[in-house]
Amino acid sequence: MTAITRVDAFAPATVANLGVGFDILGLALQAPGDIVRAEWGGDDPCAALVAIEGDNGLLPRDAKNTAIVSANHLLKTLKARRGVNLTIYKHLPLASGLGSSAASAVAAVVAVNALFGEPLTRADLLPSCLEGEAAVSGYHADNVAPALFGGITLVTGTSAHQILQLPVPADLHLALVTPDVAVPTALARAVLPKEVPLRTLVAQTAGVARVIDALYRGDIPSLAAAMESDSVIEPARAHLMPRLAEMRLIAKNAGAYGLVISGAGPTLCAVCASAAAAQRIAEAMKKHYDAAGIASAARHTLVATGGAVILETGSEK
Amino acid sequence: MTAITRVDAFAPATVANLGVGFDILGLALQAPGDIVRAEWGGDDPCAALVAIEGDNGLLPRDAKNTAIVSANHLLKTLKARRGVNLTIYKHLPLASGLGSSAASAVAAVVAVNALFGEPLTRADLLPSCLEGEAAVSGYHADNVAPALFGGITLVTGTSAHQILQLPVPADLHLALVTPDVAVPTALARAVLPKEVPLRTLVAQTAGVARVIDALYRGDIPSLAAAMESDSVIEPARAHLMPRLAEMRLIAKNAGAYGLVISGAGPTLCAVCASAAAAQRIAEAMKKHYDAAGIASAARHTLVATGGAVILETGSEK
Repeated sequence: MTAITRVDAFAPATVANLGVGFDILGLALQAPGDIVRAEWGGDDPCAALVAIEGDNGLLPRDAKNTAIVSANHLLKTLKARRGVNLTIYKHLPLASGLGSSAASAVAAVVAVNALFGEPLTRADLLPSCLEGEAAVSGYHADNVAPALFGGITLVTGTSAHQILQLPVPADLHLALVTPDVAVPTALARAVLPKEVPLRTLVAQTAGVARVIDALYRGDIPSLAAAMESDSVIEPARAHLMPRLAEMRLIAKNAGAYGLVISGAGPTLCAVCASAAAAQRIAEAMKKHYDAAGIASAARHTLVATGGAVILETGSEK
Repeated sequence: MTAITRVDAFAPATVANLGVGFDILGLALQAPGDIVRAEWGGDDPCAALVAIEGDNGLLPRDAKNTAIVSANHLLKTLKARRGVNLTIYKHLPLASGLGSSAASAVAAVVAVNALFGEPLTRADLLPSCLEGEAAVSGYHADNVAPALFGGITLVTGTSAHQILQLPVPADLHLALVTPDVAVPTALARAVLPKEVPLRTLVAQTAGVARVIDALYRGDIPSLAAAMESDSVIEPARAHLMPRLAEMRLIAKNAGAYGLVISGAGPTLCAVCASAAAAQRIAEAMKKHYDAAGIASAARHTLVATGGAVILETGSEK
């Protein structure tokens, strides 16, 4: 009999909100993503942290770590009789609006579930992922759902049946630029209005309706225009994003159909219709930050349709 | 040469809002609808009212009449050198939430345009229809758009290019009951909150997203549940609709998937998945109003995919 001794799982970066779809829409990126390695631990059915690489020592090493919280929740759910050891390979920048905590939580949970021989379905894993996310940024699924399930998700609640997969247009390419400025999610939430006028509600629901309609029709220009129609969240957060208005112009001049803040920022996400355009736009945005003396990382990628994946499984006889 | 001397046009009743889609969603019904007859008038390029049948004398007979306002706007747009005479056959109850004013405006405009040999497209007719609607209930297209274009419409503004047609599920049947209680649109608007909490905005956008998603997937149960998820408009208006909560139970017990207020009410619209169910549900709702001593009219119908139509054209050589 072959026993699994080690699993490496990858969970992708995610773009939450898609502009107008605050707290309900999100998508998974093909890259980058975090990797978590799970190995068998001691007799105590707990998750222990072996090491974190790539976070410059910024993440908690104790039981508050999002991956550890998630893994512990899963071990409880499984009524495990054995502990696990986790090693986290961070490839996502922290507090950048790319769903860093969600990626670590999801990768940890998927890796641990695989180590136990996959007793639970993806949907069953959602509560454990949410538990880890809650430890950092609140009990919501706008990053966790796309990281776990992949694709473009409509999150209408925190139960798996409240998460819907939306169509992914084949020619949807994204150009992303992350300026080296931390925007803590708590601060980004604090600047939001507590209430909005009824007129604004009508405009915002119309914008979200246009996003869903454009996704089904595979209409990238309409999708981008609808995403940008947000009149609530971006105006409140714009000042936290370096040179947002300029970057939108730069992106559009380079061929983007639109640009929105990724999650709580500061990553900006430009909507493009080809790989060549996305590459050109990512470079143009980075160049503009360079000229302004702002360090940044630029990427171009596609939507990942599959969510978290098992990269490697080690076993012994 | 044959000259058109008379045109009869039909414009359908419409259900605005579809619950959660306040001010942005609407659909056209196959029946009932208003008919307007347009005939050539005098040398003065104005619209004159010949008669209104079916309104019990309640509608204005002067230049404030919605059909007259709309027709006059169209005559100006056409730079007409001749007037028209209009006869209005009202089949829609007034102030009932079925888009009565929109139906008269649209039927008048479509009839007059046809009398002139159809110089304008449907999209070109929208401003004239809106002008008539504005005379009664404000410059908005949530009833006018489905009455003019048919189908299920997403209204994101008052220009034709801001109105999108959504898919119409083939098995979407509607049961409607109109209790004999007038709910003036102005009153129904006055009771609405001026502002809503941000959390409510998120819930409402999620509900609208689910409606669009369900329409594309042709999923009637999900559509009905999403329509009902409105947490802003219905709670504010519920007290204006006789026995709303009871009627929802009655409809669901008879097989409806959901029930919402049609437009500003008091018509209630139940979502059904077959003609037999819709008929049964309409009868059950009417019976319940009967038992409560409330006069009502019940109907069951489908979505009209075509909007206003020319019924008859008279001509002479």
